[in-house]
Amino acid sequence: MSGLVVTNPPRTERGVVDAFAAYGVATVHEAQGRTGLLGSHLSPVWSGARISGSAVTVTVAPGDNTTIGVAVEQCGEGDVLVVVPTAPCDMGYFGDLLATSLQARGVRGLVIEAGVRDVADLQEMGFPVWSKAVSAEGTTKGTLGDVNVPISIAGRIVEPGDVIVADDDGVVVVPRLKAADVLAASKAREEKEARSRARYAAGEIALDVNDMRPLLERAGIRYVDYEDYLKEQNR
Amino acid sequence: MSGLVVTNPPRTERGVVDAFAAYGVATVHEAQGRTGLLGSHLSPVWSGARISGSAVTVTVAPGDNTTIGVAVEQCGEGDVLVVVPTAPCDMGYFGDLLATSLQARGVRGLVIEAGVRDVADLQEMGFPVWSKAVSAEGTTKGTLGDVNVPISIAGRIVEPGDVIVADDDGVVVVPRLKAADVLAASKAREEKEARSRARYAAGEIALDVNDMRPLLERAGIRYVDYEDYLKEQNR
Amino acid sequence: MSGLVVTNPPRTERGVVDAFAAYGVATVHEAQGRTGLLGSHLSPVWSGARISGSAVTVTVAPGDNTTIGVAVEQCGEGDVLVVVPTAPCDMGYFGDLLATSLQARGVRGLVIEAGVRDVADLQEMGFPVWSKAVSAEGTTKGTLGDVNVPISIAGRIVEPGDVIVADDDGVVVVPRLKAADVLAASKAREEKEARSRARYAAGEIALDVNDMRPLLERAGIRYVDYEDYLKEQNR
Amino acid sequence: MSGLVVTNPPRTERGVVDAFAAYGVATVHEAQGRTGLLGSHLSPVWSGARISGSAVTVTVAPGDNTTIGVAVEQCGEGDVLVVVPTAPCDMGYFGDLLATSLQARGVRGLVIEAGVRDVADLQEMGFPVWSKAVSAEGTTKGTLGDVNVPISIAGRIVEPGDVIVADDDGVVVVPRLKAADVLAASKAREEKEARSRARYAAGEIALDVNDMRPLLERAGIRYVDYEDYLKEQNR
Amino acid sequence: MSGLVVTNPPRTERGVVDAFAAYGVATVHEAQGRTGLLGSHLSPVWSGARISGSAVTVTVAPGDNTTIGVAVEQCGEGDVLVVVPTAPCDMGYFGDLLATSLQARGVRGLVIEAGVRDVADLQEMGFPVWSKAVSAEGTTKGTLGDVNVPISIAGRIVEPGDVIVADDDGVVVVPRLKAADVLAASKAREEKEARSRARYAAGEIALDVNDMRPLLERAGIRYVDYEDYLKEQNR
Amino acid sequence: MSGLVVTNPPRTERGVVDAFAAYGVATVHEAQGRTGLLGSHLSPVWSGARISGSAVTVTVAPGDNTTIGVAVEQCGEGDVLVVVPTAPCDMGYFGDLLATSLQARGVRGLVIEAGVRDVADLQEMGFPVWSKAVSAEGTTKGTLGDVNVPISIAGRIVEPGDVIVADDDGVVVVPRLKAADVLAASKAREEKEARSRARYAAGEIALDVNDMRPLLERAGIRYVDYEDYLKEQNR
Repeated sequence: MSGLVVTNPPRTERGVVDAFAAYGVATVHEAQGRTGLLGSHLSPVWSGARISGSAVTVTVAPGDNTTIGVAVEQCGEGDVLVVVPTAPCDMGYFGDLLATSLQARGVRGLVIEAGVRDVADLQEMGFPVWSKAVSAEGTTKGTLGDVNVPISIAGRIVEPGDVIVADDDGVVVVPRLKAADVLAASKAREEKEARSRARYAAGEIALDVNDMRPLLERAGIRYVDYEDYLKEQNR
Repeated sequence: MSGLVVTNPPRTERGVVDAFAAYGVATVHEAQGRTGLLGSHLSPVWSGARISGSAVTVTVAPGDNTTIGVAVEQCGEGDVLVVVPTAPCDMGYFGDLLATSLQARGVRGLVIEAGVRDVADLQEMGFPVWSKAVSAEGTTKGTLGDVNVPISIAGRIVEPGDVIVADDDGVVVVPRLKAADVLAASKAREEKEARSRARYAAGEIALDVNDMRPLLERAGIRYVDYEDYLKEQNR
Repeated sequence: MSGLVVTNPPRTERGVVDAFAAYGVATVHEAQGRTGLLGSHLSPVWSGARISGSAVTVTVAPGDNTTIGVAVEQCGEGDVLVVVPTAPCDMGYFGDLLATSLQARGVRGLVIEAGVRDVADLQEMGFPVWSKAVSAEGTTKGTLGDVNVPISIAGRIVEPGDVIVADDDGVVVVPRLKAADVLAASKAREEKEARSRARYAAGEIALDVNDMRPLLERAGIRYVDYEDYLKEQNR
Repeated sequence: MSGLVVTNPPRTERGVVDAFAAYGVATVHEAQGRTGLLGSHLSPVWSGARISGSAVTVTVAPGDNTTIGVAVEQCGEGDVLVVVPTAPCDMGYFGDLLATSLQARGVRGLVIEAGVRDVADLQEMGFPVWSKAVSAEGTTKGTLGDVNVPISIAGRIVEPGDVIVADDDGVVVVPRLKAADVLAASKAREEKEARSRARYAAGEIALDVNDMRPLLERAGIRYVDYEDYLKEQNR
Repeated sequence: MSGLVVTNPPRTERGVVDAFAAYGVATVHEAQGRTGLLGSHLSPVWSGARISGSAVTVTVAPGDNTTIGVAVEQCGEGDVLVVVPTAPCDMGYFGDLLATSLQARGVRGLVIEAGVRDVADLQEMGFPVWSKAVSAEGTTKGTLGDVNVPISIAGRIVEPGDVIVADDDGVVVVPRLKAADVLAASKAREEKEARSRARYAAGEIALDVNDMRPLLERAGIRYVDYEDYLKEQNR
Repeated sequence: MSGLVVTNPPRTERGVVDAFAAYGVATVHEAQGRTGLLGSHLSPVWSGARISGSAVTVTVAPGDNTTIGVAVEQCGEGDVLVVVPTAPCDMGYFGDLLATSLQARGVRGLVIEAGVRDVADLQEMGFPVWSKAVSAEGTTKGTLGDVNVPISIAGRIVEPGDVIVADDDGVVVVPRLKAADVLAASKAREEKEARSRARYAAGEIALDVNDMRPLLERAGIRYVDYEDYLKEQNR
């Protein structure tokens, strides 16, 4: 199936995609029932960015970035490029030139389960990237992967048009058809957390805010003063 | 022993705890005879912090952060929370809500041999964390570990009330009963290093500042000019 | 051969060494035919530095930094210290005192396939370091490695006097005798990339800028509209 | 979607599934165009087994093996159980009791991106397992994943009813709808390799058997006698 | 505290120690409430051994095996040597000569969070070792650790005289004062598992043997036929 | 320099090469002053082999095994193939066909810092391989590395004609010009160890056999009875 470029795939509605940028990855992940988080070996190459976008999926041959060039043409405003090699090979598939090209098209960032380079330039340009590695090792050109087919990346299935949310905590994928529901749930969760945060800041603790003491009883909690504990230990 | 919460454990005296914050982890580690350093897989989630505190120890069930909530109630001004799961499982046990709660109680930071999340918030709040991983993966609630019992974390034994010192170099533990002595030794070492630093800055080198040439002789040092070296090699 | 210190090795000409600082690691690596990049497990302990220098090579005994002290005396203006232990052992072989000493001699940075400490100080001093690990674990003194002999570090052979270029992307070595040629090739590549960058920023894409479409044809590219793709899949 | 058990999914035809057992993982992987290989971090817990089977897919909650128990009921003769936790957590989800149960039902083996235990028993029973880890760490029960939904495991998408082939080289997945074609291609490849093997054993080499010399010429091969090479180097 | 050798520490009673050899690591770990398992990065250098013994604990300086030689003198019939370096450094601290010496004294095996060598000899001698690495890299002599003090190894605290049980699944520690109780619990668990095993072999499944269906109901299990599942997905 | 094949390099004399097979890797490594051991991430794909041979060195492009085919023609009786990719990429560069070809030419084994496949066949054929990984992932053909130039592999420099010794402990390289001396030293060491082994088997311990007690005194050894130790701790 190498060399297949699927054109005009569905995208999540722009309004929904954009609204996700207000919520952190942890919030979105919780809001969709603790699913969709990509493996924590993907991390931001520079910190402080938070993006949401519609996935354009790409597979590349190991050590060959030809297909990223192909994918650029399929990308537009509001997209995020999501790239995985067909076999693990952590070279530098992406750098400042491709970033310039994507930025010119309104693409919001890159998620790649491999290496990237020119990271100082990427930060200066403000182009966010989540990757498995930083490597200046150059790739070749000539072998094709696919664009806009379902991929397996960092432990999750990503389909073209799914929502990608990424920040300093990592990357989460929201299936396109669930995006509106998860967005609503994210909003609700964020509001609930804001209320809890205020109570914690005022000195209340989670045991009370979340009414956890009955659960602790059932789980068999046992409070022992240190002096009594020492006696138990030295028996 | 799951679910045991030891209350009112001894703490290292506040004055001693606070004084440690003047010294770096490397200095304290050297000052106590090159012992007590936690494994370097624990690193700061944001850089630039340096803290000292009295340890409140916590074990959590894998993928379950209930016991951290329990431990909050046992923490107070000048403490550091030290957390390890009972089996390795690098999810996100800790985030901005728990940090808000700890900060409200005067806790100085968290050391955890697992994952944390909301790292952008933690940095913005100025709440320092040393962890094994960053992960937004949410944990469950319902199974208990222990609070304020001796734990094994990152290759070291930490007991409640021990001093924890942490900075960009990592984390070191000082046993409570040795804290005053190690503090004095840290001060002495720092003063000695300051004198050496001045000499190095002025152009002297360690071979002379530390009188190392006799040691080098005993170790069999041999200086060979490059031209002679080439001849030796091509013999 | 332990304890051998080769004095007065050749160095790459200062003008050539200095000129490399204008080019990134990725550029230099490409310019010398995609060779010479050290493994990506070496990364900067603080980000934002870019250096070039002439290599002073050092092997140290595992857990013993004596030979770094010896090497300081062999270093001068424009050099970079390149250190590897004779067996893997990631302790903290280098800290702010040695950095002070090197900085006083005009040394531009350190590359080490092991650990370093005092990283907050190193950043404050502006002394750049690329290392495999950060560790405050102190080393001993007494066993010697060698200075200014060829070494194997992070997958590459480095000889004394080779050019080292390092930035946030990693570290690349350029053999001394090829340095002038690689410098010229780096300049040419950088100029070519600047022209491409301008075209990408203006909205052109790599497929056209690099005339890649014939290559894609040969590689078997196939464009399929999403609706047709679905039909193919469900056949 | 937690707790979803899909019953009566399609399976690859038994004759096709069984015929795959004649071919090694490397052969099948090549025969389907170098696709489908699961990551090499999955390895056999004991060596010497080669199996083929129809996939029953399972997701488990981190540290909780309840869903494997559920999946047993969905398994039958000729199946292979394929298990992935919803977040990475390498405990021991599977041991000799579950293996006994699966073996009684004619299941051919287990592929799991996590840990297993009782490995000496598994070998003695002749029940093959490919896993990411060996760990005796016990799991809990109470939280559900899914059975027979598409999963992402070790970098590949596996759907219920796909063919799994596994041997000492690792694990490969063949999509159900392509199975017959890939089987034929595997047979063809194996026959071609047998012919090549005979020629190699007789002393011919790949450059001639595969007519590679023109390719080498195009790639710029250059033969230099050692003495001339030395002169080039020392110029 | 370097150089401290504690003599005549308590040992777990021989009869109890020996009886543990009948039970696997997984069983003992479960029998003491899922605690005490050492990290799975410790694995047997040859497979098929199962031992139990009373711990003689040892810390060694990084890259220096002097203290193992010291510890030999403190070992006797029925002991297991448990060794950890004071800083991670995976060289080969132990080989066939030390094994010969330990075997002559009736020591049952070695657990070490570092490297060993001569593994072919160790297997031929039948001396079991669980280690973090295999490395022929030789260590030096001259710096002392401690013998028979509490140590932190592979995530657990081990005290001299604790029971060590090890097999192909890994290593578990049982505190000396709990050993008799855990032994009884191991026996009970093994008997229960034997009964379950017979039922599984006869075709019953865990859902029924363990009466898990009510738990599944509470956890929200939902059975859906494949055809209905497809309809749900394509809505 | 890609595509360079150096023909007729020097080889270590056959008699010397063959004699090394009598000694283990650990012995040879010690005999040459604890140098030359390749990193322990290279391990045998099947256990029980011990070989010595003269190195034929090979670099391959990442994910491309063309140059191994080229190197076969340069190999002969008594050689060992030593292969490293020019950038890390752990695919399966080598399998049973190439092994058949090498075996037919009298080559003794393969050392590769990457992946291999067909490991069951390799074991059945008795062709020994030390590798970084097992992977069935197929490579492409078309890009050339070099044959018989100095390489950096697993932390060591290997030149064509150097002696390679490998067994279950790993791989060691002996420079060609030192081979005769190291062989003699290996023999001497082995004889000394045989004498020590006999004394250990008879119950003597290293402290006496090696006269270590004065060294322990100097290092500050201190023997404390357990009861006195407890009192010290509880002071």
